[in-house]
Amino acid sequence: MKQLWLFNQINSDLQRVEKELHAYIKTDFPILDQSAVQLLEAGGKRLRPAFTLLAGKFYGYPIDRLLPVAMALELIHMATLVHDDVVDASMTRRGRPTVKAKWGNVVSIATGDYLLAKALELLAQINHPEVSKILAEVSVEMSQGEIQQIKASNDVNQNLKQYYYRIKRKTAMLISASCKLGALVSSAPRREVWALGAYGHALGMAFQIVDDVLDVTAEASELGKPVGGDIRQGIMTLPLILALHQSGERERLHGLLAKPEKDDDDVREAIKMIKDSGAIADSMHYVDLYISKANSYLQELPNVPTRKALVDLAYFVKERKF
Amino acid sequence: MKQLWLFNQINSDLQRVEKELHAYIKTDFPILDQSAVQLLEAGGKRLRPAFTLLAGKFYGYPIDRLLPVAMALELIHMATLVHDDVVDASMTRRGRPTVKAKWGNVVSIATGDYLLAKALELLAQINHPEVSKILAEVSVEMSQGEIQQIKASNDVNQNLKQYYYRIKRKTAMLISASCKLGALVSSAPRREVWALGAYGHALGMAFQIVDDVLDVTAEASELGKPVGGDIRQGIMTLPLILALHQSGERERLHGLLAKPEKDDDDVREAIKMIKDSGAIADSMHYVDLYISKANSYLQELPNVPTRKALVDLAYFVKERKF
Repeated sequence: MKQLWLFNQINSDLQRVEKELHAYIKTDFPILDQSAVQLLEAGGKRLRPAFTLLAGKFYGYPIDRLLPVAMALELIHMATLVHDDVVDASMTRRGRPTVKAKWGNVVSIATGDYLLAKALELLAQINHPEVSKILAEVSVEMSQGEIQQIKASNDVNQNLKQYYYRIKRKTAMLISASCKLGALVSSAPRREVWALGAYGHALGMAFQIVDDVLDVTAEASELGKPVGGDIRQGIMTLPLILALHQSGERERLHGLLAKPEKDDDDVREAIKMIKDSGAIADSMHYVDLYISKANSYLQELPNVPTRKALVDLAYFVKERKF
Repeated sequence: MKQLWLFNQINSDLQRVEKELHAYIKTDFPILDQSAVQLLEAGGKRLRPAFTLLAGKFYGYPIDRLLPVAMALELIHMATLVHDDVVDASMTRRGRPTVKAKWGNVVSIATGDYLLAKALELLAQINHPEVSKILAEVSVEMSQGEIQQIKASNDVNQNLKQYYYRIKRKTAMLISASCKLGALVSSAPRREVWALGAYGHALGMAFQIVDDVLDVTAEASELGKPVGGDIRQGIMTLPLILALHQSGERERLHGLLAKPEKDDDDVREAIKMIKDSGAIADSMHYVDLYISKANSYLQELPNVPTRKALVDLAYFVKERKF
């Protein structure tokens, strides 16, 4: 797993989350075990557990209550990833073949169902009605986001409202829940539970926009998956939507993005037009707005070192290259 | 929905389950709404809600507590059906095209995720730790059964142990939970909660064996899906496993079942050999054993008219043609 220096405060506990997840998802079924472990080991930034732990830091850090919540969040995240890879037909993620690529759709479905069931099992153990309620609501919204993504796929004429609707469900709501639940199980004051949730929501929106920008601007080696994947798959992201409005070669770009099958040259040409249109800088401007918004909610929280870490984390979201 | 006269005692409440499920799964997404409603309207026997309500009948029938549990069970069942149809590549179910056939794998995945998330939401509302715990455990086992089915697919050399392992997870555990939870939320004595769970488990095993027999013996018009589907898909069921042991044309049958692609003539010939081998009668003998076992657990329960209904239901499972 990629270690972020920002997580210094919680590094050893993040490793504990990792270790306990390994033990928790263990099963006697070789395929299921391998696919779940592959997902876990492909890693990622463990952003959701990190947010839960960091939120708990404000309120006495009751690690025994934070740990299972952090695990449940990562399980839900993993379950959505493995199903999303089927929906998006993604073959690589974080530099490794996806479960879909390695074992096919059918194993991906079963693996996602298994991880979700394990999350449900953990929630039953946590036995905190409000935690269950919040994660259930987020799960419902996330599945609706999944459907919206299917429906919107290859629909070039999307507007910003549809885009925001989707990334809210795809990313922001679970990150928001991660922050909120860390505070909730640490018995934070209501107003601060809310503020951490609002911080997480704004940060999650920024995070997803950066993700969508990186899909256009990054190097494949840094990204761990092919660049231009969204373009290829007909997923209309913010830089694409903005470029379609402001590119001097608007019609040509529209034609390229509307092609049902795009070859490498199409993708390369589209990327160039998007970059030339100024849509990247404009997208990053929206990121700035969300990050300012995120940080403003932190004013509601006690002024402890963790607050500074959350501010840094917000800026890191903007600067990240992976 | 097909109404069973056996459910007379609870018919109006089963209709209420139906109506409330309709309202509960309603969403603004046309595709999701249509696919979820199609699944719901394809109906089936609403066996799981019926068992929950019937179990509650023994203990004062607290309908307000029984209803959401019955709904959660049907939602979990529907979620597994729609994902199973992808796993099994099934194109028709109960005489209608499956969600997979109509909208494809991707919508099927999202629809299943949505229904599972709605079940999770309902469980958070029910807020009964033991209900959540039992359904979480069943969900974990069901997803492992899914994987085992994938793994075992086209493996002709399966034994009975593998078969029982699979149908326990595919069917028996959720039916067992349906009975058990109806008793549990009606504050039944522990011993009777257990007995109803044991009844449901044995009955669920019988139910699935009958299902697997009907796949060989039924008429497509009664079954609502093509006959011989399991043979075609390489799913080794009890009649197939028994026939492979006792058919006089064992090697020819083995060769047919092992073919990766089977045409209609192959399926027809295999069905004839299975019937000729006596495997159908032998399979039904196992059904009888499970039904006797199911009914024996009912002795632990109060002798009220519902007990007679459950006995009748067990015999109905054997006699059913659909």
